Amino acid sequence: MTIKVAILGFGTVGEGVWETLHTHHEYIQKKLSTPIEITSILVKDSNKKRNLPDSVQVTTDIEEVFQQPVDVVLEAIVGKQPAYQYVTRAIEHGAHVITANKEMFAHYGPHLLELAKEHNVWIGYEATTAGGTPVIRTIDQMLQVNQIKSIQGIVNGTSNYILTQMTKHQNSFEDALLAAQQKGYAEADPSNDVDGYDAFYKAMILSQLAYQDQPNWDEVYLEGIRTISSQDIDKATIQGQKWKHVATIELRHGAPRASIQPMQLNEDHPLYNIDGVENALSIQTDLLGSITLSGPGAGKLPTASAMIEDLLYVFQKERQQEAQYV
Amino acid sequence: MTIKVAILGFGTVGEGVWETLHTHHEYIQKKLSTPIEITSILVKDSNKKRNLPDSVQVTTDIEEVFQQPVDVVLEAIVGKQPAYQYVTRAIEHGAHVITANKEMFAHYGPHLLELAKEHNVWIGYEATTAGGTPVIRTIDQMLQVNQIKSIQGIVNGTSNYILTQMTKHQNSFEDALLAAQQKGYAEADPSNDVDGYDAFYKAMILSQLAYQDQPNWDEVYLEGIRTISSQDIDKATIQGQKWKHVATIELRHGAPRASIQPMQLNEDHPLYNIDGVENALSIQTDLLGSITLSGPGAGKLPTASAMIEDLLYVFQKERQQEAQYV
Repeated sequence: MTIKVAILGFGTVGEGVWETLHTHHEYIQKKLSTPIEITSILVKDSNKKRNLPDSVQVTTDIEEVFQQPVDVVLEAIVGKQPAYQYVTRAIEHGAHVITANKEMFAHYGPHLLELAKEHNVWIGYEATTAGGTPVIRTIDQMLQVNQIKSIQGIVNGTSNYILTQMTKHQNSFEDALLAAQQKGYAEADPSNDVDGYDAFYKAMILSQLAYQDQPNWDEVYLEGIRTISSQDIDKATIQGQKWKHVATIELRHGAPRASIQPMQLNEDHPLYNIDGVENALSIQTDLLGSITLSGPGAGKLPTASAMIEDLLYVFQKERQQEAQYV
Repeated sequence: MTIKVAILGFGTVGEGVWETLHTHHEYIQKKLSTPIEITSILVKDSNKKRNLPDSVQVTTDIEEVFQQPVDVVLEAIVGKQPAYQYVTRAIEHGAHVITANKEMFAHYGPHLLELAKEHNVWIGYEATTAGGTPVIRTIDQMLQVNQIKSIQGIVNGTSNYILTQMTKHQNSFEDALLAAQQKGYAEADPSNDVDGYDAFYKAMILSQLAYQDQPNWDEVYLEGIRTISSQDIDKATIQGQKWKHVATIELRHGAPRASIQPMQLNEDHPLYNIDGVENALSIQTDLLGSITLSGPGAGKLPTASAMIEDLLYVFQKERQQEAQYV
């Protein structure tokens, strides 16, 4: 058997997946004991010059993707649509789905997880949150025995980079944002990051995982980092504190609550030292106590690695199940 | 089917496992869809008063443990022997083994993993290293796609507590050790912790996991924290640095190398802020980059939780395999 893979979206992340599947080809094949074949890549612009072999179907038409055999779809598109429509199609087609799309998965995760169950396929979403840092798998693992009391996280690298620049180099917000844009950490329109939407989506995904439920979106307090002035930063520094953009998810009276907002953290807070584009989660549990996990929040290879870990996870599970009964 | 569990050793950790299996009984049973029954507990002193129901066989005789049906053995004994003999017996009996015994597993892990493979059972050892902090599962997961370049860790809470006291409160080594003993973090004979043996064992287990091999033990540089004076601490503080007791494991020319020694860390080192009894690992990988995981390094409930996570892991895997073909 060969595992047939389709990649949807060929931006930074999609390309990273393609590259990693090639550079780590032998290693991955050994882990799976099965060859992997990329059958199709769905792109936006088919005229763009890409260095891809002829054996791979490059298409702008999702129907052509599913005219080929597909065992798993790696979805690396940005935004809700058409990504949602495509992954729904994939699940109904009987393919596993691995997604890096936080906006889509925050909106439709609950429904997609149900749909996947019905169709006996699996959805991997490690790459949606904190890039390559394995937060989803770690929380999932803890949930085996522990109940999660709360999660606090720095889940947007751009905002954290800006706040770090403002703190370490006394930059103004505008200068720090410019630096982030020059380094490629921030988009030309930075709203998604600095106004907290990106962190909001990740918080909803974490809530779904930790509590099998999301808060009512209207009741989530959402504040970005534009309100933090240089004066605020200086005041915090004098007090031995740092401003961080923190997503908090917790269970209150049996229902999940969340807030995403700038917070002044003391030196002994587990997120105090998370600087630059780094992401981190601090997870409070009933038995294990407090666990903190930090690492790269984005990036081509970390995100690709997270997606491929999901891919290996699902097929190793399948293979184990088969091996047992051969 | 009921899962039959034997607990070997009823010190702090063994008792923690017993307690957690009771306090989290419903939660665990729901996860497993199967009842769990503790059939025997192996103790050192059968005359000691314990609050255990009559349905549980409490014995000092390992043979009596295996006269009962046993699906899994939770080993929470200290030291190489007789623990090694007991878990070997368990594996040959066809039982899964979950161990918290770092000294035993550092010595015999390679052999036991082989033996378990032959007998088609599984060995869980999450609780051997960094208590409840899920370092074993996280590294195992990363290894799916990533190669581990190096691991640096603070893996002995007692030594880290002493160094933290010396740094924060200008304590002498002797006073800090006394404080650790009064808090129950250090034994009356602290050698295992402060001379680095405990950290050494954990480093060997991590090497086995990351590189499927251990360094030649004679070639591992091992230095405890007794050599660190108050003057050393002061000098580091002036330089904006901290002394930490660091285990380093890395691949050099294709072979694993390790050192366990006090190191002066800069503020930007991922382990710089790990204070008190906390443990942490910083893991360098080829794709994900650097991931840091920190949490409680010991403790009754964190360690028990790690063992029960292992227990759930193995039986959920079995159950999945069965479900697929019912």
